[in-house]
Amino acid sequence: MLKGIPTIISPELMKVMMEMGHGDEIVIADGNFPATSHGKRCIRSDGNDIPKILDAILKFMPIDTYIQNPITLMEVCEDDPVNPVIWKQYQEILGKYKYTGNLNKIDRFEFYNRAQKAYAIVATSEKAQYANIIISKGVVLL
Amino acid sequence: MLKGIPTIISPELMKVMMEMGHGDEIVIADGNFPATSHGKRCIRSDGNDIPKILDAILKFMPIDTYIQNPITLMEVCEDDPVNPVIWKQYQEILGKYKYTGNLNKIDRFEFYNRAQKAYAIVATSEKAQYANIIISKGVVLL
Amino acid sequence: MLKGIPTIISPELMKVMMEMGHGDEIVIADGNFPATSHGKRCIRSDGNDIPKILDAILKFMPIDTYIQNPITLMEVCEDDPVNPVIWKQYQEILGKYKYTGNLNKIDRFEFYNRAQKAYAIVATSEKAQYANIIISKGVVLL
Amino acid sequence: MLKGIPTIISPELMKVMMEMGHGDEIVIADGNFPATSHGKRCIRSDGNDIPKILDAILKFMPIDTYIQNPITLMEVCEDDPVNPVIWKQYQEILGKYKYTGNLNKIDRFEFYNRAQKAYAIVATSEKAQYANIIISKGVVLL
Amino acid sequence: MLKGIPTIISPELMKVMMEMGHGDEIVIADGNFPATSHGKRCIRSDGNDIPKILDAILKFMPIDTYIQNPITLMEVCEDDPVNPVIWKQYQEILGKYKYTGNLNKIDRFEFYNRAQKAYAIVATSEKAQYANIIISKGVVLL
Amino acid sequence: MLKGIPTIISPELMKVMMEMGHGDEIVIADGNFPATSHGKRCIRSDGNDIPKILDAILKFMPIDTYIQNPITLMEVCEDDPVNPVIWKQYQEILGKYKYTGNLNKIDRFEFYNRAQKAYAIVATSEKAQYANIIISKGVVLL
Amino acid sequence: MLKGIPTIISPELMKVMMEMGHGDEIVIADGNFPATSHGKRCIRSDGNDIPKILDAILKFMPIDTYIQNPITLMEVCEDDPVNPVIWKQYQEILGKYKYTGNLNKIDRFEFYNRAQKAYAIVATSEKAQYANIIISKGVVLL
Amino acid sequence: MLKGIPTIISPELMKVMMEMGHGDEIVIADGNFPATSHGKRCIRSDGNDIPKILDAILKFMPIDTYIQNPITLMEVCEDDPVNPVIWKQYQEILGKYKYTGNLNKIDRFEFYNRAQKAYAIVATSEKAQYANIIISKGVVLL
Amino acid sequence: MLKGIPTIISPELMKVMMEMGHGDEIVIADGNFPATSHGKRCIRSDGNDIPKILDAILKFMPIDTYIQNPITLMEVCEDDPVNPVIWKQYQEILGKYKYTGNLNKIDRFEFYNRAQKAYAIVATSEKAQYANIIISKGVVLL
Amino acid sequence: MLKGIPTIISPELMKVMMEMGHGDEIVIADGNFPATSHGKRCIRSDGNDIPKILDAILKFMPIDTYIQNPITLMEVCEDDPVNPVIWKQYQEILGKYKYTGNLNKIDRFEFYNRAQKAYAIVATSEKAQYANIIISKGVVLL
Repeated sequence: MLKGIPTIISPELMKVMMEMGHGDEIVIADGNFPATSHGKRCIRSDGNDIPKILDAILKFMPIDTYIQNPITLMEVCEDDPVNPVIWKQYQEILGKYKYTGNLNKIDRFEFYNRAQKAYAIVATSEKAQYANIIISKGVVLL
Repeated sequence: MLKGIPTIISPELMKVMMEMGHGDEIVIADGNFPATSHGKRCIRSDGNDIPKILDAILKFMPIDTYIQNPITLMEVCEDDPVNPVIWKQYQEILGKYKYTGNLNKIDRFEFYNRAQKAYAIVATSEKAQYANIIISKGVVLL
Repeated sequence: MLKGIPTIISPELMKVMMEMGHGDEIVIADGNFPATSHGKRCIRSDGNDIPKILDAILKFMPIDTYIQNPITLMEVCEDDPVNPVIWKQYQEILGKYKYTGNLNKIDRFEFYNRAQKAYAIVATSEKAQYANIIISKGVVLL
Repeated sequence: MLKGIPTIISPELMKVMMEMGHGDEIVIADGNFPATSHGKRCIRSDGNDIPKILDAILKFMPIDTYIQNPITLMEVCEDDPVNPVIWKQYQEILGKYKYTGNLNKIDRFEFYNRAQKAYAIVATSEKAQYANIIISKGVVLL
Repeated sequence: MLKGIPTIISPELMKVMMEMGHGDEIVIADGNFPATSHGKRCIRSDGNDIPKILDAILKFMPIDTYIQNPITLMEVCEDDPVNPVIWKQYQEILGKYKYTGNLNKIDRFEFYNRAQKAYAIVATSEKAQYANIIISKGVVLL
Repeated sequence: MLKGIPTIISPELMKVMMEMGHGDEIVIADGNFPATSHGKRCIRSDGNDIPKILDAILKFMPIDTYIQNPITLMEVCEDDPVNPVIWKQYQEILGKYKYTGNLNKIDRFEFYNRAQKAYAIVATSEKAQYANIIISKGVVLL
Repeated sequence: MLKGIPTIISPELMKVMMEMGHGDEIVIADGNFPATSHGKRCIRSDGNDIPKILDAILKFMPIDTYIQNPITLMEVCEDDPVNPVIWKQYQEILGKYKYTGNLNKIDRFEFYNRAQKAYAIVATSEKAQYANIIISKGVVLL
Repeated sequence: MLKGIPTIISPELMKVMMEMGHGDEIVIADGNFPATSHGKRCIRSDGNDIPKILDAILKFMPIDTYIQNPITLMEVCEDDPVNPVIWKQYQEILGKYKYTGNLNKIDRFEFYNRAQKAYAIVATSEKAQYANIIISKGVVLL
Repeated sequence: MLKGIPTIISPELMKVMMEMGHGDEIVIADGNFPATSHGKRCIRSDGNDIPKILDAILKFMPIDTYIQNPITLMEVCEDDPVNPVIWKQYQEILGKYKYTGNLNKIDRFEFYNRAQKAYAIVATSEKAQYANIIISKGVVLL
Repeated sequence: MLKGIPTIISPELMKVMMEMGHGDEIVIADGNFPATSHGKRCIRSDGNDIPKILDAILKFMPIDTYIQNPITLMEVCEDDPVNPVIWKQYQEILGKYKYTGNLNKIDRFEFYNRAQKAYAIVATSEKAQYANIIISKGVVLL
């Protein structure tokens, strides 16, 4: 444990976030997501849910302001009656870090393709459906 | 995720528990424990506390009945006024799995030595002090 | 050995099943299947037959309900008089886990292609012909 | 599968048996044995019991005739009322391969030490207690 | 050395033959063949000639009966006056294992392509020209 | 780059600081220190001097309060007229992080031995002599 | 440290510069550049800025004189009011090493593609925007 | 050192020459050639020039007699006044090993492509320009 | 294959002989020798006997003239009536390379210890008993 | 090739010299020295002799001034009439780099022990006897 680093962030996850640069993407995936098969780097985060880890990640990671859709979600499948209430929670967390833009939605298989190109996938145990989220990293200006 | 496997157990942790045999030990360590430096195999479990993971481990792992002290804790350092209330919680969890025996206590550096010989260390983010615990694996009789 | 885990499941196989996500596929192959050459991950299960290991796998792995054909077999080659009685046994095992849907059949070389994309192949010593089977993993809802 | 090779023998096990030389030892361990922690090379044989794999191994491996005790078992712990009937089965299998000598018995911890020096440990799912057995490889004279 | 295993077969070669399945191919190459550059797995067999190792391999490996040309040789280059008498020797060895079918011949560069897709190449020191041979593995029926 | 993480800290260094636990030590070494030969893990920090990296490390790393001498320097060799003014700078930086305790000094070869047992060595390009410093990590209480 | 080698050059960076040949390219990237994801070899240089490391590199590395544009920068994005004053500094440093040619500019995504083909990327902590620079290595004539 | 092996040939180079087969190519590259970036296997030979190592290689390696151009050089770039006198030296060395055929010349970038497909590149410190040479290995007839 | 290199010498064996220096030892072991378990580097030479490979090795390797016993054999075990006629063959081969000194003999377990310190063990399929031989490498004077 | 770096220094050797710190030792060994077996890191420099590489190394590496004997040679064996004239050459080269101190001599086996603890061994093809030399690295003061 270090001072000022939330304990939910593993050493590996912090290293990966620091290695990422402008435009690199990180996927935070729910418990059923095929993370190992679709990710270049898969970081396990078993036992944790997404909102808590999303909050911890955004404490450090700037969101890309050079593109229109730096935040991407998985669209609800046609005919699926699920209403992903977790998205509201995401908006609050993003707002806390001054992001008030769009939440882009793409369909399941397009999402899988994006995940395969992402820098890393964090494999959580999130139980909510359609909870997967992609963040494009922005720049830190000093 | 699989049916009947608590999500707090990572694929790596389950593999390690299955590889362990009679007499092999597993350490569940708190957030300040020097786990990487003292363990042959270090399994990260950032963001999780010990009681929940202890419960999940004991669902599968039998406790050694061939020895007197299959459960070991780290003794409170002399002059340290801490009263580790988490030990009561451990007793309840152990009782749930029919273990009503002794909770052996050894001093900090003896504990470090035992950890170095253990099969694996699970590195949690547990905040309670003196929360580290060692379990000796028993046998499954069929 | 762990409580509640069938001994036929190796530590490596359990880890792989836990790493798999929604839509990932596992092949359970017979003794003559070219498993090492066609699989990304080949898990040896020498000395075991398929029905016993299929039963053990389905105890933990949910079957995909989002697609029409989550179970796939290798079609009998044209002119081959073999009648794969083992398929009946598979239907019983699948029924035990509430799967009463279709058993999809594809030809030998299409099956090989699918196997190459699967998450893992379990290489058994099953002697029955046309005994190879592919399972698409579903989701666990909590 | 190959002609004349029992299917219970994995490719890895055959390779290991061929690499072994005069005086090298192989341990066939039961399901509760701490095989990974005590073996230089651990070969999983989940789902299989010892008599069947012992028989298959002896089909190929000569027993050491240069020493008095080429076959070693784990002694029943003091006060343990278990009567290991599986030892009779071992004697029959050994007799089939012309070994009619002594079955040496050593205590649990001495057995663990021997296992650590052995060339390999085969980790079976044998359920019988005190079923672990060590074989010293002999020479093939041509 | 093991009972019943010809000494010319290395531990690695035996492991590879056991891992191979129906339709996988093995190339036995002469001393001038570019084996390392053209093979996924190159098994050295320096000092040995092909007939002896072919005989040893066929003792264990079934020949594919599902295809017309399970045995493939390298065609003599146009204008090359060489008459590969070793092919007669191959026919005798194959006959010993009940193969009386065709010896398929393909040109040098087609042969190289096949070798690159084969499961393994055995690099011998065979001196005879046009001695390279490919075997497609068949099934063992029990 | 991440928000709130000094750029002088590399991804690898942050990971290492997070993996370290109570009592693990980190050495910050000058440009002439034999860091690769004496360290279990050597983290290059070429082009940087020690005060700046010490400051950045202490922003995150708690100093051990369980021992008397959590900060260790290399004693000036006998007869060496050097007066390490950099130590004053260290005291200011340590004071900024509320450490006002002792600066322990040990001789060159004892220092080398400690470095070999440390968790990691940061190899800087610090030019000042006797600038090497060891920090024992403390605990974070939450 | 060695005589005559600037301390900002790490052992790894020197090795890489020596391995590079005529036409190989090295990217010196700012702190926000996606260096790990876009580079075949990523050499960390955290805490350092580009002008100092550029100067050190050019002390050893000849610039390619066989092509028109051996030096490449990232073009300012359309509508971005930034005026990269650091480019002037680059021209002075390049002039010091007798390069008075063109500073080629290519757009951000073309720059990313070039970076992916480059021999290595040096990941600095440079804060100036549009500071990334690519150098094509020339020949040393003796 | 071994009897009869020139000391300029490193253990790695000899191994590579022995692994090569009919039609495999080896590049002997000058000191400015981009050998690491263009070679599957790069064998360093720093401090040595090409004629001496060419002579040593040809002592063991037969030149391909099945093709018209077993020896390939890099063509002088258009407008480059260089006259590669080293080619004469090559012809003498080749003549010593009974090769009196053509010295094929291809342009710089075609040469780079060939190098990328070659079995290995020997990276010398040869200073002469246009000194790079490719040799196609022939067969040894016994 | 290369000109002048006997085909029985594998690329790996040649590399190892070249890496060896004054005083390093090589063991040529028979088919029953525990070569993998007792050797730092084990080079398989299945299918070959010792005299042929000994001859090929001595073609290149000088015998140590600085010590009294550069050639070592395994002493016949007490009460073993075997008369190792192969030793005569060894003397002839050694004589061919001008070695007329002593053939040192040490007992089986001392031989095993020497083998463990040797640079490499060549694992042949030699059938003769007591055929193992150790050679101490000498110097090449130029 | 780089400006100002002698071509005899390989990329690996330069990296190793830069990693070395105060008190680390480098051995420059002749062609018969058992370099691979006695060195932690063995850097091949086949085809080169020691004086040329010693000169190139000393161009960059400071000699240790904190100890009495920073330069060590291998003593001539008793009764060996060799007079190592190369030592005079070493003295000249060392003098060129302002070292006029002692050339320490230790016996062959003590030299071997020192070599095993050294940071690296450079394996040259030097033919002169007793040419091996050890250099203790000093500090660079800036």
